[in-house]
Amino acid sequence: MAEADIDDLPRNEANHTALTPLWFLDRAALVHPNRLSVVHGSRRFTWAETYRRCRRFASALHSRSIGHGKTVAVIAPNIPAIYEAHFGIPMAGAVLNTINIRLNAATIAFLLGHSSASVVIVDQEFFTLAEEALKIIADEKKAAFKPPILIVVGDETCDPSSLKYAIGKGAIEYEKFLGSGDPDFAWKPPKDEWHSIALGYTSGTTSSPKGVVLHHRGAYLMALSCALIWNMTEGAIYLWTLPMFHCNGWCYAWTLAALCGTSICLRQVTPKAVYSAIAHQGVSYFCAAPVVLNSIVNAPPSDTILPLPRVVNVNTAGAAPPPSLLADMTKLGFRVTHTYGLSETFGPSVLCAWKPEWDQLPLDERTRLHSRQGVRYVGLEGLDVVNLKTMEPVPADGATLGEIVMRGNLVMKGYLKNPKANAETFAGGWYHSGDIGVKHPDGYIEVKDRAKDIIISGGENISSLEVESLMYMHPAILEVSVVARPDEQWGESPCAFVTLKDGVDSSNEQALAESIIKFCRAKMPAYWVPKSVVFGPLPKTATGKIKKNELREKAKAMGPVKKSRL
Amino acid sequence: MAEADIDDLPRNEANHTALTPLWFLDRAALVHPNRLSVVHGSRRFTWAETYRRCRRFASALHSRSIGHGKTVAVIAPNIPAIYEAHFGIPMAGAVLNTINIRLNAATIAFLLGHSSASVVIVDQEFFTLAEEALKIIADEKKAAFKPPILIVVGDETCDPSSLKYAIGKGAIEYEKFLGSGDPDFAWKPPKDEWHSIALGYTSGTTSSPKGVVLHHRGAYLMALSCALIWNMTEGAIYLWTLPMFHCNGWCYAWTLAALCGTSICLRQVTPKAVYSAIAHQGVSYFCAAPVVLNSIVNAPPSDTILPLPRVVNVNTAGAAPPPSLLADMTKLGFRVTHTYGLSETFGPSVLCAWKPEWDQLPLDERTRLHSRQGVRYVGLEGLDVVNLKTMEPVPADGATLGEIVMRGNLVMKGYLKNPKANAETFAGGWYHSGDIGVKHPDGYIEVKDRAKDIIISGGENISSLEVESLMYMHPAILEVSVVARPDEQWGESPCAFVTLKDGVDSSNEQALAESIIKFCRAKMPAYWVPKSVVFGPLPKTATGKIKKNELREKAKAMGPVKKSRL
Repeated sequence: MAEADIDDLPRNEANHTALTPLWFLDRAALVHPNRLSVVHGSRRFTWAETYRRCRRFASALHSRSIGHGKTVAVIAPNIPAIYEAHFGIPMAGAVLNTINIRLNAATIAFLLGHSSASVVIVDQEFFTLAEEALKIIADEKKAAFKPPILIVVGDETCDPSSLKYAIGKGAIEYEKFLGSGDPDFAWKPPKDEWHSIALGYTSGTTSSPKGVVLHHRGAYLMALSCALIWNMTEGAIYLWTLPMFHCNGWCYAWTLAALCGTSICLRQVTPKAVYSAIAHQGVSYFCAAPVVLNSIVNAPPSDTILPLPRVVNVNTAGAAPPPSLLADMTKLGFRVTHTYGLSETFGPSVLCAWKPEWDQLPLDERTRLHSRQGVRYVGLEGLDVVNLKTMEPVPADGATLGEIVMRGNLVMKGYLKNPKANAETFAGGWYHSGDIGVKHPDGYIEVKDRAKDIIISGGENISSLEVESLMYMHPAILEVSVVARPDEQWGESPCAFVTLKDGVDSSNEQALAESIIKFCRAKMPAYWVPKSVVFGPLPKTATGKIKKNELREKAKAMGPVKKSRL
Repeated sequence: MAEADIDDLPRNEANHTALTPLWFLDRAALVHPNRLSVVHGSRRFTWAETYRRCRRFASALHSRSIGHGKTVAVIAPNIPAIYEAHFGIPMAGAVLNTINIRLNAATIAFLLGHSSASVVIVDQEFFTLAEEALKIIADEKKAAFKPPILIVVGDETCDPSSLKYAIGKGAIEYEKFLGSGDPDFAWKPPKDEWHSIALGYTSGTTSSPKGVVLHHRGAYLMALSCALIWNMTEGAIYLWTLPMFHCNGWCYAWTLAALCGTSICLRQVTPKAVYSAIAHQGVSYFCAAPVVLNSIVNAPPSDTILPLPRVVNVNTAGAAPPPSLLADMTKLGFRVTHTYGLSETFGPSVLCAWKPEWDQLPLDERTRLHSRQGVRYVGLEGLDVVNLKTMEPVPADGATLGEIVMRGNLVMKGYLKNPKANAETFAGGWYHSGDIGVKHPDGYIEVKDRAKDIIISGGENISSLEVESLMYMHPAILEVSVVARPDEQWGESPCAFVTLKDGVDSSNEQALAESIIKFCRAKMPAYWVPKSVVFGPLPKTATGKIKKNELREKAKAMGPVKKSRL
């Protein structure tokens, strides 16, 4: 027998097919045709209906020559149409480009131009925004402008006038568009699982947004990983608090189909709406950035339904949750899974895998362990913290800072039309997250800061995140963000921007600032203590991340900290 | 922008790696190093230990030039070494060939010759069997015989003399072999996920055994599917009733690593041992063929621990379970998942997905639904029942017979060195199971028989399985198998082989046979009723399947049913 005989059995049609989450929809419609797939107010769809609607969707695109290599943009909150887009668009072979509804027209114009979207599907509430964005492109490109097919999604919870306006402007009504498609359309999986399924733009807080391109293979694997790491069970009822336009809802749009589960849509995320869905719709799972959890923890009692009627699992990522927030959520009865990732890794791909033996520890210790980002998902093959210069792994000492890097099947294909960024981001055979962290002796990693958020004071690195975590213990602080402010003596020093809790007396800002600084002195090394404290609301991105770049600009505009102040 | 620009982002080291279940072990050792991985009597291993042992295993093979393209045979019951073989062998790049311990030396000689095994790892109890098999090969090949490396696994529960004997014969002791390997061996994933991970031989009840070759990709996907379809949770405690030599324990060896769960080994499967593991080791999951469930249902009360201390999930496949058996197991409190598949599909790849609404139905109706084989696993992409000649799907009427076919990523690479069988088995782009079934209006399939077990009487097809299912309702019958017996008038007619329950008065076999035939007349069409009933134990394969070929031979030897008997 020759050396490799046992590998002489090639792939064929029977034993190899492209991995794609589209198979999950086909299966859900077969296995649980009558189970609820998507619920939005009084609208309820079953899996049989969702499958037929998605096939109509794909067929309607196909008949308009939208297929492989084409991009379809969707501008919508968490309504059924954006869920359907996660299947209907790739079933036609095209790429789904979800767009953040909170961007301004100029940015959306940039994105639609960059992605060359052939179709734009827009929720009626955001029609004028899309219209404005397209006008900007038209004005810029002049005769070269080929307007995309424009589809407007009506929603009974919105004012009918905006739908009427959109149709008057020539947009095709979404239901009519679906009606033009064949509900039995014979969709095909992609020829290659490496084909693109989705394109999403980074929030671009510091530079032009970059287009993250995701592949069918990774979407399939992430969808399964998402279920496994969270112990999600078949038929799970999931609340859409996390926008689907944000990294495809961390791929849960596809996970729900794999589990034949039910999606509860939510146009507006408020603590009251979240609690109501838990009370009335059987919700057991939702994902949310820490900012949303913060609002849940601080909701007025009349908006809550405590104690919770069942275990409610929360997956939080998007920013490092302050330890106090994890503790508060746990006290309310939520089971919080702390995860970490980026759009470039299909959403969170690292989790603080909980160990049953930790249950016996005091709350403080549990919270300390819980606030670490942790270990790779089942579907991610490599995760490490490496020296920024040598790329050697840092020692697992919980102290040495390095860059967090990932590798494996949950890493994006790359950035669209951006070879320079791709070369940098994939240097040395790893995806470079741009996040700074440490590795603990037990192998769990912990994010210390975004590389660009690190404050360098007198040559020492200060993690803005760690300063914030300690400041969150102050009873008057609702939200805090710490950034570098130029400093005559030390180069940079920490500057804190603070939002106070309701009811805190803020008549004497200076006294309050001094009390906070005093509080900090008792909690942290002297060089970490913010030299200035500024009160007011914090600027946020569409997904609730604090815009540190704006705060840095503000701190810079305040001028350098004078030597004399010391 | 050119048509396919968005697909112009190639794979690289950072974003693409071979799918292989080996990653799960690496992760389990990182995340839960101190959790029990494998328990066997008083021997207990943690995930950190199992990982180090498997790396030693791979290293020890590597240093003996056993790598890609080489095959390593394992002849062992469910002991830790065979679990470790599922990782150690592929980590060296080689292919794991598990061999059924209940085969005779001549058959094992055939398998070792066919697979060209470079190494044979054998449990001490089966050493002389392996020795005998190797002698057969040596005698046959003479000077051309290159003896494989022989490794013997000691087990404290066995008589020490057989271990001593094996070492005296030059076999390397397994622990010593591991000791020669590096516990930090830098294993690598396969270069290609299509590389072979395992080779298993079909039982070959009718022809020469065929070598089923499985790939890393499918093993990875099946391992995850196994967890998902069964709602298995992280840290599951699993009892090894199903032999790992049978289709890699339906891939659960790898699932347990993905879940960081615990494997409880079992050298001898008895109802008492199963109940004891449930009582004392926290077992919540096990897999077993119906024959094992039958012994559990019929166990003497002193061997049981009823009521069960927790929900115990049972996955049963390997033969269609009689409906009465499903009902009996359910009554005992087991949650039975009925699955179906073949070695060629990485084990069961079809399941009777349970619908919560069925819980409200009467037991009979629930059992009827439960005894259907069902729908595809999440990881299988195609399942159908097709006309044997045209390959067109049969109507979903629950009546039209056709062949069950599968397609997708849970289908084997093919049979080793058997192009003719491969051409047949993959004809028309589907894997042909050789099983005959129907498709119900709700899309669930039901196996009616192995193609070769169908009885053709007067031109009508009779499913031996359906006759058996009805006969199982007879209070005196413990086990029954129905096969074709030559029939002068009808060509073939059903002949039943019956094992009676303990305590049944069998002094008058003829009267008992007549009473059974009378019972059948009341339950089934006249032409289904067995014309002969034979009492005695049923011959079984190593995995508990009844050897229908032997019974057919017996029925044939009885001579044709005479016309006059009618």
